[in-house]
Amino acid sequence: MPHLTIFYTPDLDRPVADGGADMQALCTALAEKMRLHHDEAGNPVFATGGIRVLAYPAAHSAVADGGAAGRAAGGTGEYGFVYLNLRLARGRSPAVHESVGRALLACTEGHFISLLKTRHIGITLQIDEGLEVYNGRLSSLHPLFTQG
Amino acid sequence: MPHLTIFYTPDLDRPVADGGADMQALCTALAEKMRLHHDEAGNPVFATGGIRVLAYPAAHSAVADGGAAGRAAGGTGEYGFVYLNLRLARGRSPAVHESVGRALLACTEGHFISLLKTRHIGITLQIDEGLEVYNGRLSSLHPLFTQG
Amino acid sequence: MPHLTIFYTPDLDRPVADGGADMQALCTALAEKMRLHHDEAGNPVFATGGIRVLAYPAAHSAVADGGAAGRAAGGTGEYGFVYLNLRLARGRSPAVHESVGRALLACTEGHFISLLKTRHIGITLQIDEGLEVYNGRLSSLHPLFTQG
Repeated sequence: MPHLTIFYTPDLDRPVADGGADMQALCTALAEKMRLHHDEAGNPVFATGGIRVLAYPAAHSAVADGGAAGRAAGGTGEYGFVYLNLRLARGRSPAVHESVGRALLACTEGHFISLLKTRHIGITLQIDEGLEVYNGRLSSLHPLFTQG
Repeated sequence: MPHLTIFYTPDLDRPVADGGADMQALCTALAEKMRLHHDEAGNPVFATGGIRVLAYPAAHSAVADGGAAGRAAGGTGEYGFVYLNLRLARGRSPAVHESVGRALLACTEGHFISLLKTRHIGITLQIDEGLEVYNGRLSSLHPLFTQG
Repeated sequence: MPHLTIFYTPDLDRPVADGGADMQALCTALAEKMRLHHDEAGNPVFATGGIRVLAYPAAHSAVADGGAAGRAAGGTGEYGFVYLNLRLARGRSPAVHESVGRALLACTEGHFISLLKTRHIGITLQIDEGLEVYNGRLSSLHPLFTQG
């Protein structure tokens, strides 16, 4: 943890010049944002070794009315959609949740700012606190960030 | 929201004539079902701009006993599986949850009715109320449905 | 239910000789582990017809610091990541959750044991109890395991 999973319509994997969004660059930017995020006391909010961002284009999708309103408004009728879900371990404060959410939403907005002006795109970002009843971990990755 | 995410075994992406299920048509039908769904008072349950259906075939999968019982019953031993998860915003009534769940399950049953007779397939549909601790949105899609 | 969904970095789909992990074999092993798992009284914990394991490599991903610490440690800077999420129906005891979690984590550890020694890999396994507000099922699969 934190795990940020991104589910999106596959049109966003097209080249940027053709209405795509460079989703790899978004993943990299969001991971970096989490790594550098600090709380009010100046402490890192997340352990570097626990940061993961995984993005998944859907194989099939249907959004809103399927395109009718978009075409009526002079667009192509193709709607893009991105859902970002960040799962955190329990125990952080509402202020930290709000601060992390705003930072990631701002990062996402910066990434999509021109596309939001030229296409019909919906983006939702939510943070869940995991309520797991079992939690296990195996890692040869975490020690890189806790040694020395 | 509502977000309907469908996870399924990849065999269902084969041509319909070969045991597939036309998952794109299912996405389209379910989105339309949500768009037209009304509550007891005759009001739409969902905002059109918030409806999203995304479907994901697994790259790898294992179901039940791996096929032994299916072969013993004279089948191919190939099991199909579909999991439909609808995430809603909080605050709707149990009656609305039940009504939406039944409508989407009926739509899904209509789609799979012949396949359920000819193959061994399991389908589960669940509705979750999101318990998110942060919710953010960016959209050039919603205004299409709220203007005028 | 139980539904085990595995989200992972796509490098793990490479041939085993090249640092991959044979994710299909992992799915098969975990399904079998669930099928054979018994509680303290010797009863099966899961109905065979309800067992599903689905695995998804991400299209795009970013992990930890992106590779800097791994390269500094003499590695390639490529981090692997696997997230296993098991969703169960409500109502099992904490002892059963713990027992199932440990069994699946041990199975996963056996699968990744040599890779954990040669690459930087993080693996997280969590169990959630579903809190769904609607649950529906269609199945020509379950009858295979409940007849006779």
